Amino acid sequence: MENNESLKSRRSINFFEPNIEISQDKILELIEIANLAPSSFNLQPWKVVVVKDSERKKVLRQCAFNQPKVEEASFVLIIVADPLAIEENIDRVFDSWEKLGYMQHEMRQTYRSMVYQLQGEPDSLKRKFFAIKNASLFAMNLMVAAKGLGLETHPMDGFDEACVKKEFNIPEEKIIPMLIAVGYLKKDIQLLPRAFRRDLSEFVKFERF
Amino acid sequence: MENNESLKSRRSINFFEPNIEISQDKILELIEIANLAPSSFNLQPWKVVVVKDSERKKVLRQCAFNQPKVEEASFVLIIVADPLAIEENIDRVFDSWEKLGYMQHEMRQTYRSMVYQLQGEPDSLKRKFFAIKNASLFAMNLMVAAKGLGLETHPMDGFDEACVKKEFNIPEEKIIPMLIAVGYLKKDIQLLPRAFRRDLSEFVKFERF
Repeated sequence: MENNESLKSRRSINFFEPNIEISQDKILELIEIANLAPSSFNLQPWKVVVVKDSERKKVLRQCAFNQPKVEEASFVLIIVADPLAIEENIDRVFDSWEKLGYMQHEMRQTYRSMVYQLQGEPDSLKRKFFAIKNASLFAMNLMVAAKGLGLETHPMDGFDEACVKKEFNIPEEKIIPMLIAVGYLKKDIQLLPRAFRRDLSEFVKFERF
Repeated sequence: MENNESLKSRRSINFFEPNIEISQDKILELIEIANLAPSSFNLQPWKVVVVKDSERKKVLRQCAFNQPKVEEASFVLIIVADPLAIEENIDRVFDSWEKLGYMQHEMRQTYRSMVYQLQGEPDSLKRKFFAIKNASLFAMNLMVAAKGLGLETHPMDGFDEACVKKEFNIPEEKIIPMLIAVGYLKKDIQLLPRAFRRDLSEFVKFERF
């Protein structure tokens, strides 16, 4: 694909060709590319549950207001934003930074304080924002990567989060910003034209250009 | 660029070649591609302030803990997440859906109720989550698009949000999930190897694979 063709041709697909299996290798390739997304202090506050078994897709569909695409897609990813990723990852991020020359050892405590100042304590609202925004960077990277691999996607936030957490054993403190259905466009479906986008003049402001 | 080359080669750049001007046309092209990002019910809760004038970059740098890259980058985007985008955009999104065949007119009230049920009332926490996650999808799309246009980026959340809002006249109820510095890599800078990423086995769970 040419420069930015993945971005220009990506659409949110409502109708997936059912019963098409996508190999675990391809799913892992997709997630591996998506995982190159940037994150605040490289803390990577995202986790992924891959729902691909047909019985489990039925369960997820019930948590998602019975939307057929959950079952028709080849698999659905539960994108999990993890407010506790700082505690989980900060030491090894800093180890990596020291080893690769990003940070001097003496700066470690300074950086740690910056992380907590900017991203807040575990229970804070700031910390939730941190988790959601970075998990969403990962999610968008994944949707673009999917297009590059010939796959179609649909990001969904029409679901009952408590139901998804309960059925898929996701701890209470995590946040689920979206599900992403992944697969192939259903045969003989013509996509409708792309819906309304705001004109740039409406939401882009040049400061003293 | 080949399939997903933009994603694989994208890095967060700390050192930009200073004094390189990027044309308004190219900036608009970048934002136009990024603006194809998906959003919840297509509500597009993002706005962008382009900071490119050197005096204004100095002001922004002061709000961003004096980080040199704010001034050295060709321009910096203030990514604004707008919790009130629902009220601003819902009617014309639905008009577009009706016109293009996405939605029957009779379903309009049902969809409106769904939006408010899922995304909450204007002051709610749900509404803030809605704005941040979708603005972050836009932000990631923009960073990938930049790479496709030969530009480098650095997403930043090291800044004083109140300062940015005050200096750039951004209303109190908006949220600024990140700034994105955009430009070209400084001459003679060798990028360090990509820092630590978690192994997929650690954060990807296959449900009954």
